[in-house]
Amino acid sequence: MIRFECDYTEGAHERILKRLVETNDEQTSGYGTDPHTEQAKAYIKQACDAENADVHFLVGGTQTNMTVIASILRPHQGVIAATSGHIAVHETGAIEATGHKVLILPSDDGKIRADQVKDCYDAHWNDVTHEHMVQPGMVYISQPTENGTIYSKAELVALNRVCRETGLPLFIDGARLGYALAAEDNDVSLADIAKLCDVFYIGGTKIGAMMGEAVVIMNDALKKDFRYHIKQKGGLLAKGRMLGIQFETLFEDGLYLEISKHAVDMAKLLRNALAELGVSFHYHSTTNQQFPILSDRLLEALKDTYSFSFWEKTDELHSAVRFCTSWATKQEHVDMLIEDIKRLHPSSVWQ
Amino acid sequence: MIRFECDYTEGAHERILKRLVETNDEQTSGYGTDPHTEQAKAYIKQACDAENADVHFLVGGTQTNMTVIASILRPHQGVIAATSGHIAVHETGAIEATGHKVLILPSDDGKIRADQVKDCYDAHWNDVTHEHMVQPGMVYISQPTENGTIYSKAELVALNRVCRETGLPLFIDGARLGYALAAEDNDVSLADIAKLCDVFYIGGTKIGAMMGEAVVIMNDALKKDFRYHIKQKGGLLAKGRMLGIQFETLFEDGLYLEISKHAVDMAKLLRNALAELGVSFHYHSTTNQQFPILSDRLLEALKDTYSFSFWEKTDELHSAVRFCTSWATKQEHVDMLIEDIKRLHPSSVWQ
Amino acid sequence: MIRFECDYTEGAHERILKRLVETNDEQTSGYGTDPHTEQAKAYIKQACDAENADVHFLVGGTQTNMTVIASILRPHQGVIAATSGHIAVHETGAIEATGHKVLILPSDDGKIRADQVKDCYDAHWNDVTHEHMVQPGMVYISQPTENGTIYSKAELVALNRVCRETGLPLFIDGARLGYALAAEDNDVSLADIAKLCDVFYIGGTKIGAMMGEAVVIMNDALKKDFRYHIKQKGGLLAKGRMLGIQFETLFEDGLYLEISKHAVDMAKLLRNALAELGVSFHYHSTTNQQFPILSDRLLEALKDTYSFSFWEKTDELHSAVRFCTSWATKQEHVDMLIEDIKRLHPSSVWQ
Amino acid sequence: MIRFECDYTEGAHERILKRLVETNDEQTSGYGTDPHTEQAKAYIKQACDAENADVHFLVGGTQTNMTVIASILRPHQGVIAATSGHIAVHETGAIEATGHKVLILPSDDGKIRADQVKDCYDAHWNDVTHEHMVQPGMVYISQPTENGTIYSKAELVALNRVCRETGLPLFIDGARLGYALAAEDNDVSLADIAKLCDVFYIGGTKIGAMMGEAVVIMNDALKKDFRYHIKQKGGLLAKGRMLGIQFETLFEDGLYLEISKHAVDMAKLLRNALAELGVSFHYHSTTNQQFPILSDRLLEALKDTYSFSFWEKTDELHSAVRFCTSWATKQEHVDMLIEDIKRLHPSSVWQ
Repeated sequence: MIRFECDYTEGAHERILKRLVETNDEQTSGYGTDPHTEQAKAYIKQACDAENADVHFLVGGTQTNMTVIASILRPHQGVIAATSGHIAVHETGAIEATGHKVLILPSDDGKIRADQVKDCYDAHWNDVTHEHMVQPGMVYISQPTENGTIYSKAELVALNRVCRETGLPLFIDGARLGYALAAEDNDVSLADIAKLCDVFYIGGTKIGAMMGEAVVIMNDALKKDFRYHIKQKGGLLAKGRMLGIQFETLFEDGLYLEISKHAVDMAKLLRNALAELGVSFHYHSTTNQQFPILSDRLLEALKDTYSFSFWEKTDELHSAVRFCTSWATKQEHVDMLIEDIKRLHPSSVWQ
Repeated sequence: MIRFECDYTEGAHERILKRLVETNDEQTSGYGTDPHTEQAKAYIKQACDAENADVHFLVGGTQTNMTVIASILRPHQGVIAATSGHIAVHETGAIEATGHKVLILPSDDGKIRADQVKDCYDAHWNDVTHEHMVQPGMVYISQPTENGTIYSKAELVALNRVCRETGLPLFIDGARLGYALAAEDNDVSLADIAKLCDVFYIGGTKIGAMMGEAVVIMNDALKKDFRYHIKQKGGLLAKGRMLGIQFETLFEDGLYLEISKHAVDMAKLLRNALAELGVSFHYHSTTNQQFPILSDRLLEALKDTYSFSFWEKTDELHSAVRFCTSWATKQEHVDMLIEDIKRLHPSSVWQ
Repeated sequence: MIRFECDYTEGAHERILKRLVETNDEQTSGYGTDPHTEQAKAYIKQACDAENADVHFLVGGTQTNMTVIASILRPHQGVIAATSGHIAVHETGAIEATGHKVLILPSDDGKIRADQVKDCYDAHWNDVTHEHMVQPGMVYISQPTENGTIYSKAELVALNRVCRETGLPLFIDGARLGYALAAEDNDVSLADIAKLCDVFYIGGTKIGAMMGEAVVIMNDALKKDFRYHIKQKGGLLAKGRMLGIQFETLFEDGLYLEISKHAVDMAKLLRNALAELGVSFHYHSTTNQQFPILSDRLLEALKDTYSFSFWEKTDELHSAVRFCTSWATKQEHVDMLIEDIKRLHPSSVWQ
Repeated sequence: MIRFECDYTEGAHERILKRLVETNDEQTSGYGTDPHTEQAKAYIKQACDAENADVHFLVGGTQTNMTVIASILRPHQGVIAATSGHIAVHETGAIEATGHKVLILPSDDGKIRADQVKDCYDAHWNDVTHEHMVQPGMVYISQPTENGTIYSKAELVALNRVCRETGLPLFIDGARLGYALAAEDNDVSLADIAKLCDVFYIGGTKIGAMMGEAVVIMNDALKKDFRYHIKQKGGLLAKGRMLGIQFETLFEDGLYLEISKHAVDMAKLLRNALAELGVSFHYHSTTNQQFPILSDRLLEALKDTYSFSFWEKTDELHSAVRFCTSWATKQEHVDMLIEDIKRLHPSSVWQ
């Protein structure tokens, strides 16, 4: 089985493993107070051009989302998110379990627009019964989105502006942030991200690390006591350096972006090949997730050799599916997949 | 600095690292549905003589405690624990954050007795206002305790009996379980643990793993939907095999117990040497944590070379402190520590 | 100002006040353990033809909804409700504050259908990632709905069937239950309600009482420890008899239905008069809430004399609004309102 | 049965009933936005000499405590309280259900001292592992305490000072506040209370009202969005004027203090009579709760005629019990009780 079902099918980047082996016998203090974690924080602040940021390392995405969000909201507040946002769909109600409603906005492509946020905010405050409703307390977006799409700099600037106007902190879920940064049509740098939001995280699990997400808090008001929140939510790793060492490796000399680019290049190979076949796509994604619409017959033929994710039926005979590449994807596997699709695709047959 | 402050100062056992390197390029499905995790579960069930157990791997202790406890209790119920129980003291209110009170019982040595549990249960139900009070819903104990002490088989049998009589599930926090199993005065096997409680966990973080705790659910009624709970509480690792591989290594041929014994042996060296000097101990511990009472002057002299944890002042001039050994402790370090204490200990000086 | 904005603008029915005065000097035990509360429970069980029911009195609707729902769901479960359900919109996230997501189903008229529930349930269990999503744990409907519409007996039978098949308890919010029971096209008796759901409540606040809702638990599995839940959620009134006396009065000889019918009759007067004018309605309601679509000019002219609730703009020049009648509505006020609308309505003018 | 078991055995003060009847037909807007509620707020602010206070009316004590506390604390914070505090004992874990630990301080008489609070605060911040522990976030005291004792002005000034120094808001549970204000040795006025804490409430349920507690928020930082919290916690009464009218009546011309004094006078009759008999008391209470230590034989003889609360066994043959008087207590009942005790008391017999 060649796996394209998600971007966490392999272990860790070899340089990370090597570093873990090299440092294994060191004795360090626990809970992220070790020198490797310090170094990793310094590298990340540098990469974000954000010397005043607070950086924390957590283990996984759901944990990070619920910890950040619960640390910001008051009990009567909710978090605005796209209807397809990870927190709204795929976290088993982790946000609600901390007491907060996810206030969903409709979205075709996984993104929400600044004017939607403004309208949601205004609708709340203009409703005479607003005390009977959950108050919007912050905004959550994903870059790239769960649909592989990315926000442009202009879109983020607009979101930033409306968030500042309304006083709603902006939180960016960067579980796959590297894959957005590496997209060919991306115009947003890591430093832009840092400047345009209040808090975000840089995903490691899906980009080269065994596990680990780096939370970067930009807004001073959100920094206080954050380690208490991590501990309470079960995210303070005793051997915290395991996360520190991984991010140290990813950020000391650009490995994070380098391997992100590889994944995006592999996805582009697949996208271009499918486009040439006349295949259409469910979402316009230039990142590592591709959502082609293929015939069920073709998919049936592929599924013994390749794993991928079913997304949704698009008509009687076709489905949108998701293929993910990653930092670890081998080009030979992508080539094989392309060849097999070419062979099986109706239009190819007809030629 | 030679570290005895806790049992998570090094990385992982070399065989675990080796296995992680060997398996790194394998492609597997996520969230613990991979073959390594399956194999690890099988080994653990065998080690526990519990073929019908459900085994799950989580990342850390606080996360495990809150996930297990929140999965068992109803909203109006609390968990009975020793006043020194980890959940009552050192988890930043993680249990309360899931909505539940920790119902504390006094304890001098970290253990609670069956009759205390029975009295607590009876006191609740005999109080005419019991609907105004938190209902005892389960019992939490640690083996070994936070004070290094261990429950005897007779004590566990008694707790098991009272828990069955009262219908309170018994949960054993085994963050350091190996260090109890390896204690020279221990008469409780892993199979005994499995038989005598409803759910327990085998700690990896403190015994050879980078991170990871293996939850073993014995009571069928507690098995349902447990993976939802793990996911909601942020403990379902995307690359779940990272935990599977570690526990596979620890349990395929007895490594877990072997390295646990090493830690306990190292602690014994220290304990015996101190006892010979006439040092008294704050708790009677035969496990890897030792709590000698030493003069503040001696401790002051040690602290530039060795790290250890302050526990509490015992009189004007002395303090109880904690020295931890672990699977990774080097005997030469223990010997050095002993020599230094011998040299510095008042009685030595006086000789 | 003549108020039609809601159905809680007056105090309590005069017979309730009289009874409160008569019984005021009695000394009784607290928290609903008094003879009046016992008597009220007996009357309600009789009215529901449900001798085995458990009956409890709480103070208000939001409190009742969150207490019932939190007592039923496990942490990873959510409650299915119409997108317009009170718990989804107008309770400031009270359900989420107890840790649970409201799983919304689209609805044009406030009702959800059995097949929607089935589809939602199937969609969850058929999704391979269902452990990453909130599990449907129960169903919430309102009778009448927030839009004034009512479920027919056939619809409730179908919901009951799908709930039994899927194991999802069915909870009926009866904040205005009397106004459904009294509707001319209603074919559902109180005994039907009791038979077709697992738990429901009979609203007092909006039908003659100062405050108070009577929860009726039919499903034995949901009865255990319910008073703990009431107490924990702040709903156990010290002078519980205040609620008992009110429901005793409402149910000893049919007062509840009698005054519900009055409200419905008043609403019918208004509805018929408006229909004669050619006014259309936003929802088809035969209960005490009427949602006519009127010109903004007319509404502007009315608003100094009458209070009513804005619902939504229906076009540039018109809005749907809500007029509520209640047990206390005076016919002379309805007549005045009708006359004024007749006078102001464009078609009248044009005649 | 003559009831002394608690202070909520009767209905409401007759003037309250009268006012409810008089105002019953008025039409007012809901949720406490009516003129009676406005008037009640004005009276209370005047009585507290606190024009800038925010006043809100809730239904019951547990509801009020959890709403206030949850509105103040951040997720990782707990509330400091006496081990006998109502929130620590008799609210079925309502505070924990909102996610927060109650941090208990030992107390013999129900009071906590300023230095205890300071020590608790310092112990937290001086512990190097404080991020692993619940952070003290506010202080809760009861005036009078659950044991009938009262804080002196000097004690409250000291608590106020330590709370300001440490930044911990001080919350006073005044479920029986009138009975403290009326105590003969009380030196704390309502205006003192308002000045010396951040938020407190004036209990109505136990002093003349059917139900209702008036929350007075003094600290501007705690005022924001409080109505959202009330609604979310189920405490926003639809017919809010029911509470407004009651407090309007209690505070328009001093009724609250007047009837409080009656209860305290009745308690004094009992206390003095028992003291003359040589009876000792479990707590030194000058308020409406009296805790005499009486022989079990005597109590057995009393219990068919009088209800009272068992408190605890004090020796083999004696128990401390609680007798409550209230605004509604009839002197003839107290006289009867005294006579019966005199007749039955051993020393009387022996004389």
